[in-house]
Amino acid sequence: MSGENLKHYCGIFGIYNHPHAARITQLGLFALQHRGEEAAGICSSDGEKLHLVKGVGHVGDVFSEASFTNLPGKNAIGHVRYSANGSSVLTNAQPYKVDYSRGRIAIAHNGNLVNAQILRAELEAYGSIFGSTMDSEIFIHLLAKPAYRSHEEGIIEATRRVKGAFSLTILTEDQLIGVRDPHGFRPLCLGRIGDAFVLASETCAFDLIEAKFIREVEPGEVVVIDTNGVRSHFPYKDVDVPKAQCIFEHVYFARPDSTIFHDNVGFVRERLGRQLAKEHPVDADVVVPVPDSGNFAALGYSHESGIPLAHGFIRNHYIGRTFISPTEAGRAFKVKIKLNPIRQFVDKKRVIVVDDSIVRGNTAKNRVKLLRAAGAREVHMRISCPPPISPCFYGIGFPSKKELLAANSTMDEIKKFLDVDTLGYLSLDGTLGATTQSSKDFCSACFTGKYPTEIFDEMDKCKLEGKRDFFGL
Amino acid sequence: MSGENLKHYCGIFGIYNHPHAARITQLGLFALQHRGEEAAGICSSDGEKLHLVKGVGHVGDVFSEASFTNLPGKNAIGHVRYSANGSSVLTNAQPYKVDYSRGRIAIAHNGNLVNAQILRAELEAYGSIFGSTMDSEIFIHLLAKPAYRSHEEGIIEATRRVKGAFSLTILTEDQLIGVRDPHGFRPLCLGRIGDAFVLASETCAFDLIEAKFIREVEPGEVVVIDTNGVRSHFPYKDVDVPKAQCIFEHVYFARPDSTIFHDNVGFVRERLGRQLAKEHPVDADVVVPVPDSGNFAALGYSHESGIPLAHGFIRNHYIGRTFISPTEAGRAFKVKIKLNPIRQFVDKKRVIVVDDSIVRGNTAKNRVKLLRAAGAREVHMRISCPPPISPCFYGIGFPSKKELLAANSTMDEIKKFLDVDTLGYLSLDGTLGATTQSSKDFCSACFTGKYPTEIFDEMDKCKLEGKRDFFGL
Amino acid sequence: MSGENLKHYCGIFGIYNHPHAARITQLGLFALQHRGEEAAGICSSDGEKLHLVKGVGHVGDVFSEASFTNLPGKNAIGHVRYSANGSSVLTNAQPYKVDYSRGRIAIAHNGNLVNAQILRAELEAYGSIFGSTMDSEIFIHLLAKPAYRSHEEGIIEATRRVKGAFSLTILTEDQLIGVRDPHGFRPLCLGRIGDAFVLASETCAFDLIEAKFIREVEPGEVVVIDTNGVRSHFPYKDVDVPKAQCIFEHVYFARPDSTIFHDNVGFVRERLGRQLAKEHPVDADVVVPVPDSGNFAALGYSHESGIPLAHGFIRNHYIGRTFISPTEAGRAFKVKIKLNPIRQFVDKKRVIVVDDSIVRGNTAKNRVKLLRAAGAREVHMRISCPPPISPCFYGIGFPSKKELLAANSTMDEIKKFLDVDTLGYLSLDGTLGATTQSSKDFCSACFTGKYPTEIFDEMDKCKLEGKRDFFGL
Amino acid sequence: MSGENLKHYCGIFGIYNHPHAARITQLGLFALQHRGEEAAGICSSDGEKLHLVKGVGHVGDVFSEASFTNLPGKNAIGHVRYSANGSSVLTNAQPYKVDYSRGRIAIAHNGNLVNAQILRAELEAYGSIFGSTMDSEIFIHLLAKPAYRSHEEGIIEATRRVKGAFSLTILTEDQLIGVRDPHGFRPLCLGRIGDAFVLASETCAFDLIEAKFIREVEPGEVVVIDTNGVRSHFPYKDVDVPKAQCIFEHVYFARPDSTIFHDNVGFVRERLGRQLAKEHPVDADVVVPVPDSGNFAALGYSHESGIPLAHGFIRNHYIGRTFISPTEAGRAFKVKIKLNPIRQFVDKKRVIVVDDSIVRGNTAKNRVKLLRAAGAREVHMRISCPPPISPCFYGIGFPSKKELLAANSTMDEIKKFLDVDTLGYLSLDGTLGATTQSSKDFCSACFTGKYPTEIFDEMDKCKLEGKRDFFGL
Repeated sequence: MSGENLKHYCGIFGIYNHPHAARITQLGLFALQHRGEEAAGICSSDGEKLHLVKGVGHVGDVFSEASFTNLPGKNAIGHVRYSANGSSVLTNAQPYKVDYSRGRIAIAHNGNLVNAQILRAELEAYGSIFGSTMDSEIFIHLLAKPAYRSHEEGIIEATRRVKGAFSLTILTEDQLIGVRDPHGFRPLCLGRIGDAFVLASETCAFDLIEAKFIREVEPGEVVVIDTNGVRSHFPYKDVDVPKAQCIFEHVYFARPDSTIFHDNVGFVRERLGRQLAKEHPVDADVVVPVPDSGNFAALGYSHESGIPLAHGFIRNHYIGRTFISPTEAGRAFKVKIKLNPIRQFVDKKRVIVVDDSIVRGNTAKNRVKLLRAAGAREVHMRISCPPPISPCFYGIGFPSKKELLAANSTMDEIKKFLDVDTLGYLSLDGTLGATTQSSKDFCSACFTGKYPTEIFDEMDKCKLEGKRDFFGL
Repeated sequence: MSGENLKHYCGIFGIYNHPHAARITQLGLFALQHRGEEAAGICSSDGEKLHLVKGVGHVGDVFSEASFTNLPGKNAIGHVRYSANGSSVLTNAQPYKVDYSRGRIAIAHNGNLVNAQILRAELEAYGSIFGSTMDSEIFIHLLAKPAYRSHEEGIIEATRRVKGAFSLTILTEDQLIGVRDPHGFRPLCLGRIGDAFVLASETCAFDLIEAKFIREVEPGEVVVIDTNGVRSHFPYKDVDVPKAQCIFEHVYFARPDSTIFHDNVGFVRERLGRQLAKEHPVDADVVVPVPDSGNFAALGYSHESGIPLAHGFIRNHYIGRTFISPTEAGRAFKVKIKLNPIRQFVDKKRVIVVDDSIVRGNTAKNRVKLLRAAGAREVHMRISCPPPISPCFYGIGFPSKKELLAANSTMDEIKKFLDVDTLGYLSLDGTLGATTQSSKDFCSACFTGKYPTEIFDEMDKCKLEGKRDFFGL
Repeated sequence: MSGENLKHYCGIFGIYNHPHAARITQLGLFALQHRGEEAAGICSSDGEKLHLVKGVGHVGDVFSEASFTNLPGKNAIGHVRYSANGSSVLTNAQPYKVDYSRGRIAIAHNGNLVNAQILRAELEAYGSIFGSTMDSEIFIHLLAKPAYRSHEEGIIEATRRVKGAFSLTILTEDQLIGVRDPHGFRPLCLGRIGDAFVLASETCAFDLIEAKFIREVEPGEVVVIDTNGVRSHFPYKDVDVPKAQCIFEHVYFARPDSTIFHDNVGFVRERLGRQLAKEHPVDADVVVPVPDSGNFAALGYSHESGIPLAHGFIRNHYIGRTFISPTEAGRAFKVKIKLNPIRQFVDKKRVIVVDDSIVRGNTAKNRVKLLRAAGAREVHMRISCPPPISPCFYGIGFPSKKELLAANSTMDEIKKFLDVDTLGYLSLDGTLGATTQSSKDFCSACFTGKYPTEIFDEMDKCKLEGKRDFFGL
Repeated sequence: MSGENLKHYCGIFGIYNHPHAARITQLGLFALQHRGEEAAGICSSDGEKLHLVKGVGHVGDVFSEASFTNLPGKNAIGHVRYSANGSSVLTNAQPYKVDYSRGRIAIAHNGNLVNAQILRAELEAYGSIFGSTMDSEIFIHLLAKPAYRSHEEGIIEATRRVKGAFSLTILTEDQLIGVRDPHGFRPLCLGRIGDAFVLASETCAFDLIEAKFIREVEPGEVVVIDTNGVRSHFPYKDVDVPKAQCIFEHVYFARPDSTIFHDNVGFVRERLGRQLAKEHPVDADVVVPVPDSGNFAALGYSHESGIPLAHGFIRNHYIGRTFISPTEAGRAFKVKIKLNPIRQFVDKKRVIVVDDSIVRGNTAKNRVKLLRAAGAREVHMRISCPPPISPCFYGIGFPSKKELLAANSTMDEIKKFLDVDTLGYLSLDGTLGATTQSSKDFCSACFTGKYPTEIFDEMDKCKLEGKRDFFGL
């Protein structure tokens, strides 16, 4: 898996009416940790005030016993995130909490707006000031307009102004609100635990806290939870907006034990592997997964092809981000320190190595090198999605076009670059066909360059044209 | 000194055109550490972007070598602060930095607005959102109004809207701006070091960095420093605003080696002591200062009275705020752990103990107890200012009226409470007469209850009436 | 895998004649992290002095850039460890370094002496003082006897006095010495990287640093590496000591990509799984591994039985030891937070769940519960080793007899306790037969109660008799 | 004061039979913090086991609430220390605790042995191993000899073998033992608090915990405290050993509020100042103390001479050891950051500046520079002890001979180096005469080069001859 180059922006969580709201939120965030490892935050409401604790690091490090003393109340939202810019990690950590004319409000956001720059410029022109670079701050400025009569109305109206990807959990003094953009780019699920309602990016968060999964929040739905129970608004109901659920959630990002977009992720991945075997068969001795990202697809490939699976790579799970070795710098070492091949299983063998995706290609290249050094006679690489050729503007930290291997090389060049005997990417139809849903309900812009929304922001346009790698800044 | 109960809100610093702007700012803040021990921050400008590092703790702990890598540029401002509310220390740490329509701006504020609530309510009514409880955020909202054509105009106009105490250093992409409110409550000094200009709350910051003191920023002056040099605006020049420099800066807060309000602080304090000896003479054996706050006044008292000074108290300077001993809780122990009398110098003696002020009275009471336990035959307490009877709304964290010893007791009751043989507070005239400036140029509201401004905020009014101790919250 | 209850004491490493000796040692320890997660240490020699850095925590946390400045020299040894007693983790961290009459020496020890108490009492009777409870300190006292003429002679003689399990790396000013006890309980391997020689508990450490594996240090061998190259001593050559290599290293402890005791560990584990399928076949729908400990055996079982593998459990790798949730205490929660079943793969299925071992049984029981809650129709548990019935005194932190599930229950009781439909443990012959070596070269005391050495220490005897759980203290 | 160059090795404490033994020890160490700022440790006894917590840093940082949970029992000893060698601070932190044949024992040591090398070599020749470079470890090896029948006998016999300076507190399972070497180099005091007995380097520790001072432990006395009360041994009673109490404790090291060697330290210092005025009068305007070290002597000088005191220097007490400024390196900056002159008090004045001592001279030189820059017309330096010309081997970290200013310069050269108008050191007779005790009861080797003991160790001899600065290593 070369997915390591892809940084998902966030995982979100919310709970209403639970005596241990902040603690349960911590558990929910822990289950969503894979969606954002760099910062975490929880905001709780005690009915009058909102209380916020956030910090840089993993969920288990950010929150201490003392944190929970500072997070009273029965309602809470939480957030985990990646951040592109190290120096501003804490400033941009979420939830984002403010006071305004109608009271107190906090937001946790997963996704990315495509008209952020325009909105920001417009707001600034009216005198707004911005303390962060988060899209959530824009959202709050929009909902704070004095014309609206309630938190709820403000949120609904703000929802109509923003374009792009946004799954949100919002906390006011006495409400928990979930919002999912009309395209439904990012998942958002609704569950119940006793008398409490919960919202989470993925159902794996429900499993850990033993909440019952009720249903997914619909694309374009605003769910308001308060003492009156759960009610829904559909601000976009009169507009024709196509669904555009992110297929990459299934391919790589979501946890295999989650159900999102009406399918179990692990099951979809095994089907991707089976389809891959149909599309790209090859005569070989073993199927070796790249752990853990290629595990399901490799098993599917093995089942479909009849070629036995072999645990040819061992993954070192101790890797911490603090582990630095200046004497052994570079990506090759980073690959080696995470993954070690077992000679016994690949020596003199024809090896099919299965991974989820290739982005820049360097990681994949180094893995092939490791396999050859361990004696592999042939290396056949099989990838359970098409080659990405265009950046994502909906919440995944893709590199710019000029860094995407497949955007700048022919299939032959890639094969040569990776030094593989054969190379097979799953077709787009094959990929979308692995779910039980209609193909047109998914966004596959990263594979096709066809975006389901306009792209308004200058920075994004440059990135698209490959002029400059803004993300890498 | 019982001044420990008084928390000054802030010290501020700014520098323009120095190759090591952030490092010099750190040194400046270090010299101003006594004005705020709980949080520190530096914002630097590299001509395009503003860079911010802030944290909880002392200056020496908040900034590391890595901080300076993250603080490039030749201009910078800095801030040290106390905070009333532990949980929000970091959120409210300054400088406060934002993006808005005319670019980027950061503010460091010393003082307290008296119309903050009104302005905030008004701004929220127009849709503003507030991420902190800092007055600086209000100031930035005001200057961000779209009508103004430049940072500079915005600042000048904002200055006209706010009431109360504000000495500010402001940083934009290419300017350093110093602002002092028309009353001149808090000090602000202008200096020069090579080709660079500096602003600081007190001149002791100039001494450390070997900057030359030029002059004080005038009450009501806005000093703009940029490539055109230094120019001044006087937004209040058409309004008749009386000067109201805080006499408590001389009595307790400022560092003795600073020059503020046109006088050296240590020199003023020694004169306070001399005057105290004139107003409250007593036959005794030794004059014992409460170190370090009473050192200068005690020396003045000794010189004037001819009664020899004795170092009767030893101060333990190792005290850290982390030192907690649940088995020895309470104020009595806190006094003992900081101060130990030397029996040899007080046993069987008639002792005059000199301190700067008495606020709640518990600390003073415990010191008298220590002296008596060490054998003092008589204890005569002399205080180098009048009894405070009314809270401060201009940037000093006084307790509310109901907690001020002198606001609720007769002189006899105080004497009895403290268990002293005689007690002498310096008169107001004596206090103001110790400076070389006109008495009417100073604010002495804490001693008189006569405030030089209106008090607009509800919270402040309650505090004034002694209804509830908001500050203690 | 219930192996989580088993704490291996240590991993050791050593390098001679490498310009980055300490850094390479850090990498080696990183690869051996699974052998000890609680403390780590490195001792380097610059030819004259020994330099030591050790600390509590993972390898990536203990050593910083500053550490390497403090660890100069071309020779080094390192150590990772578990510790039974939290309060003394740092005191007992290794390497253990001392000065004595013949110079300076440091030791890193993997294993456990069975005559430690006797030796300690004897040494104390002669006036020795002990600063720790480590066996390594005993070893150093023994070798420091004034009668010996060199480090080397001292080490050889000390080797003759100690009984039990000991793989050692020893560093003097100018030598690196490797020692393996005559039974060969713990592994120790010799390798080469350029002009440098390396010693490590497992070959996975060689892979990471790209060292070439030369051979294993023989049971009873003392390998001395210095400017004269590599030479060996065999202090036990005249004594008949049976080999007793720990079969549990293959079953659970060693990394699957290591080669120890002349076999690749992953390969042995897959053979254990195949044999398990032969001994305990059952009609079922899927074979589900407990990740990661059961991965290889499950794959072997699947291959042998033809029943398809399914990734029925997802492991959360973010788990930190700092993650505590008082509201969700207990082992059941600990199991759930680490492992989540995927309903899609087990619902309504007859599931064969394969793990490496069962020690206390609570973990296994909770996993069965999770599978049933996810809809499994039948649960057939298969374990790739026999039931442990007796504690280990050779360096594995087994619980005492009274806590070992199988030591106190019949097979029926275990089946009932775990709530499984069928239960199959691999036979001892089947287990030992999975290696390519002679069965009698292995220690299987934990499965049989037949110990290859005498047990001298009182504490161990009590533990054996199940009188009291010393280890649990 | 230039005393900053002098690092005292330690402060010690002990308490017997107090329900909060460890907490009281923490307070005692806190009061003794000036005797050692780099590491602190407490060892407690619960009657069976000894428990140890130690760490690098100030007392307030090393011990947390958790520490006290780990330090049960009614008896305890504690230690604060300086360390010459940064890398081994923790290894050499005390108390030093071991197991040996007669049980468990821990030692805290203040002082320095002059025959450490000889004893160490001898012990190593018999097979002893050394884990640290502390003299306390030697002491324990000596007392652990199997011939002795009890802790107590071992301690008494060990006392007879060591030479040099040693004040010790020793803890066994059920005893607290205090030892003071026959010369009495370092102080050790006995006190009582309720039913508990306490030992401490200085009486200021008794004041803080409100213990009653009973008496000083006599030179050559071993005080044993257990259930039988307090009893004394005098192992040296048959040997004629002259008293040699360190006069530098009075001049600089001890806290002014302590009573040691039968005199109050502050009182002695004021008498040193009075005598200095008699020996070195000069016509001047003000007497300026170097705070805090010169405070008492300056006051004495002022009283005797009639020349008024002025607080001409302000000390910055915020200085932390973490405060580093690479752009402003060097001693001159270090002086400036700690001390700022007040121009108002020295400008155009003839200034007598009074300090306790001059060691290397650089600090003093820089202070003179500051005074002259602040306008002082004349600078007359007065030092309240003679010039040190020879290193200390009894527990004070003096530099070697070649670094001592006065050991290598004439009085004229020193005057010129410091750039003072006049310079006056107090005479030796004047110094010793300031106490109430006999002059011959004090060690003044640093001023005279006449050592009260033989110097056995090679390293010390070299240092004495100025060959090499071992201490500076």
